[in-house]
Amino acid sequence: MPYFDAASAAPLHPVARQALLASLDEGWADPARLYREGRRARLLLDAAREATAEAVGCRPDELAFTPSGTRALHDGIAGALAGRRRTGRHLVVSAVEHSAVLHSGEALEADGGSVTRVPVDRAGRVDPAGYAAALRPDTALAALQSANHEVGTEQPVAEVADACRAAGVPLLVDAAQSLGWGPVDPGWSLLTASAHKWGGPAGVGLLAVRKGTRFAARGPVDERESGRAPGFPDLPAIVAAAASLRAVRAEAAEEATRLRALVDRVRARVPELVPDVEVVGDPVRRLPHLVTFSCLYVDGETLLHALDREGFSVSSGSSCTSSTLEPSHVLRAMGVLSEGNVRVSLPRGVSSEEVEEFLRVLPRVVAEVRDRLGAPSPAGGGSGMSADLVVDSLGKRCPIPVIELAKVIGDVPVGGLVTVLSDDEAARLDIPAWCGMRGQEYVGEAPAERGVAYRVRRRV
Amino acid sequence: MPYFDAASAAPLHPVARQALLASLDEGWADPARLYREGRRARLLLDAAREATAEAVGCRPDELAFTPSGTRALHDGIAGALAGRRRTGRHLVVSAVEHSAVLHSGEALEADGGSVTRVPVDRAGRVDPAGYAAALRPDTALAALQSANHEVGTEQPVAEVADACRAAGVPLLVDAAQSLGWGPVDPGWSLLTASAHKWGGPAGVGLLAVRKGTRFAARGPVDERESGRAPGFPDLPAIVAAAASLRAVRAEAAEEATRLRALVDRVRARVPELVPDVEVVGDPVRRLPHLVTFSCLYVDGETLLHALDREGFSVSSGSSCTSSTLEPSHVLRAMGVLSEGNVRVSLPRGVSSEEVEEFLRVLPRVVAEVRDRLGAPSPAGGGSGMSADLVVDSLGKRCPIPVIELAKVIGDVPVGGLVTVLSDDEAARLDIPAWCGMRGQEYVGEAPAERGVAYRVRRRV
Repeated sequence: MPYFDAASAAPLHPVARQALLASLDEGWADPARLYREGRRARLLLDAAREATAEAVGCRPDELAFTPSGTRALHDGIAGALAGRRRTGRHLVVSAVEHSAVLHSGEALEADGGSVTRVPVDRAGRVDPAGYAAALRPDTALAALQSANHEVGTEQPVAEVADACRAAGVPLLVDAAQSLGWGPVDPGWSLLTASAHKWGGPAGVGLLAVRKGTRFAARGPVDERESGRAPGFPDLPAIVAAAASLRAVRAEAAEEATRLRALVDRVRARVPELVPDVEVVGDPVRRLPHLVTFSCLYVDGETLLHALDREGFSVSSGSSCTSSTLEPSHVLRAMGVLSEGNVRVSLPRGVSSEEVEEFLRVLPRVVAEVRDRLGAPSPAGGGSGMSADLVVDSLGKRCPIPVIELAKVIGDVPVGGLVTVLSDDEAARLDIPAWCGMRGQEYVGEAPAERGVAYRVRRRV
Repeated sequence: MPYFDAASAAPLHPVARQALLASLDEGWADPARLYREGRRARLLLDAAREATAEAVGCRPDELAFTPSGTRALHDGIAGALAGRRRTGRHLVVSAVEHSAVLHSGEALEADGGSVTRVPVDRAGRVDPAGYAAALRPDTALAALQSANHEVGTEQPVAEVADACRAAGVPLLVDAAQSLGWGPVDPGWSLLTASAHKWGGPAGVGLLAVRKGTRFAARGPVDERESGRAPGFPDLPAIVAAAASLRAVRAEAAEEATRLRALVDRVRARVPELVPDVEVVGDPVRRLPHLVTFSCLYVDGETLLHALDREGFSVSSGSSCTSSTLEPSHVLRAMGVLSEGNVRVSLPRGVSSEEVEEFLRVLPRVVAEVRDRLGAPSPAGGGSGMSADLVVDSLGKRCPIPVIELAKVIGDVPVGGLVTVLSDDEAARLDIPAWCGMRGQEYVGEAPAERGVAYRVRRRV
């Protein structure tokens, strides 16, 4: 049963499992205690910190273990902002950061600070010059992921780090998706990561703060982990995280080459096998194991369930799979199609046959979902003719508004206008994206009595 | 090698170990995902929550899993205070709460709020009437531990809960030390606990918030755990925590009876076997497995090391074993001797022989430490006679000032005065405590040119 959602969580690496079991017996005591069980725990903790710091590229005393990557981001951003509060209360992030970063930004805004969200191109990549232009004299902190978690695009960390250094602004790099594959460009001031992304256990995040970086931990005082991560440390999990990081790094170069080839195959074959698909994310500067594509006229949740029934576990940034009914902020920032979105992130050790099987199954599954939704055939085109048309899709959710638009576009003459009334948030992203894919002209949106009127002019 | 520090961390219960291993394979995926691995993880999480909620005495949807007991306290107190910010910014705690509670109070004060620390008697217990008197119209939250972590004294939770209910103030009960032994009186509004205290793994705390309790989670938004505990949940650890809580509860009544008898033996025999010892904490209303005593003329760190060499792992609230050079806030609030402080907390399954061996070894170890420090013999008494005396103990650390006082008290006539000059923080607690134990009169303290002058009048 192929699991293709390694970017969400990876099964425990065998080395992590072994290390976890060994340290359940040796590492349960409080490492701050003076007796032998405490000293033994302290030795394990010190060794784990040294090994992890080496893989991160920092000093052991710069590295704290947190309970998760999310906590590392929340606490790291809050501490860095507080440490430079005198400089100002402005935060710069890319528009495609992890939600833990964006939510930290919202918390800052709610507290009176300000946030600049640097846009990305259609590949999901920030422009270093654009990022540099967002830095201000009152910028307390800048944050940039090493690679995007939804589309795999690598960010220009080295160039942005140079710009931040020149501006005297500390840069926090969220390395959650990439740390298992290799070290990050060393220009960061703070770095965060999450062990269960590289085959370590849940319950372990990393927060590294370079010496000399101003940092004022928030919340009640706690002396553990240099005062940066309160609470009793989960030592067996930390030991397992350290051991598995070392193990995946040892295999990283070889496995990256292998997975990169498999992903290239998916990137090339999916658009051949499935009509009306957009593969998103940078084709070259990307994580080795991750590929994302969106399928017109399909809703993500139905597609996920259908793939699950066929034995494939993937994730989706479509609005239909999220509780908020909004498409993923990453796809929105990229301006690409969100409907029928599928993220495939291959775990280490995946076989070529599993990927081939996915490519064999996918076209049929997509076709079945489209059939059920009454999507137009790829040939498309209508029969009757009327000058302009209004399609009422109010109350209908993604991908129905786009399907209805596609069904009637052939009913107006070239130059004619179709107006789609929709109250589904995804339509704002998907109707322009459909126009781009189909060569039709997206005229714009206007508020309607109910919902929004999206106007499309037929060009082909 | 007997480990007698279960109140700090207990070795993993066999049931926890088993559950952890099983769920490493079943519970590594994201329980929020729609595919089978995610659904399986969700089932495990739901089952763990139901079992734990039953043991806590709350509804499953009232219970969140946090990364530690400390985080449960930090986030629980902050959320409860924020939820009642309109009522006021006053917090009531007992003076002997866990440091995570007291540090939360300090954070509130630093942010402009106020804290009342309700004193305790010499047994470490708050007076319910005194606690009730501390509640004010602007009190946003009250916090009380179910039992003290250093001396084992049980707090009058039911009476304090009644007072809080009458005043309309929510009560947070820190049940970290007692939850493995049984449910807490149900009058709480918030409850916290920590799994590694009951033989569960590290990395799991509990935060229960009763329906109807105002609560506003602090920090960046995160949808997990009802928005009360950000970050990817450590599911295998949560499953292990739930399984072991159920297991220890099933054995609790029998094991409590057995350990209570062993602790009674320690409480009775230590003062018989070792001269100049004060057993502290309530002799009856106490945790079954925990006993604390202090030994005059001994420093805690040396005693701990000596016991460790003999194979016994215990902890201490003495100033000499802490990085702050201050005696434990619990002993200070109780006004009892802190020097030579030893906490024995028996793990489940400890044998009667191990406790007997401890009682056999302890007198010799204490005598050796006292010999090395040149402590006065229990008979005491000096030889020469002078009206009043000044002892310069400046620069000397606990227990030297008390040893020097004890050595010269016989050198002044009954009614004569000994002044001890000391700059050691522990002297403030230990000199009055020594006077109490010895029937001498503690006159008081006054600032000296360097340090503090502690004055003692010889009465016997």
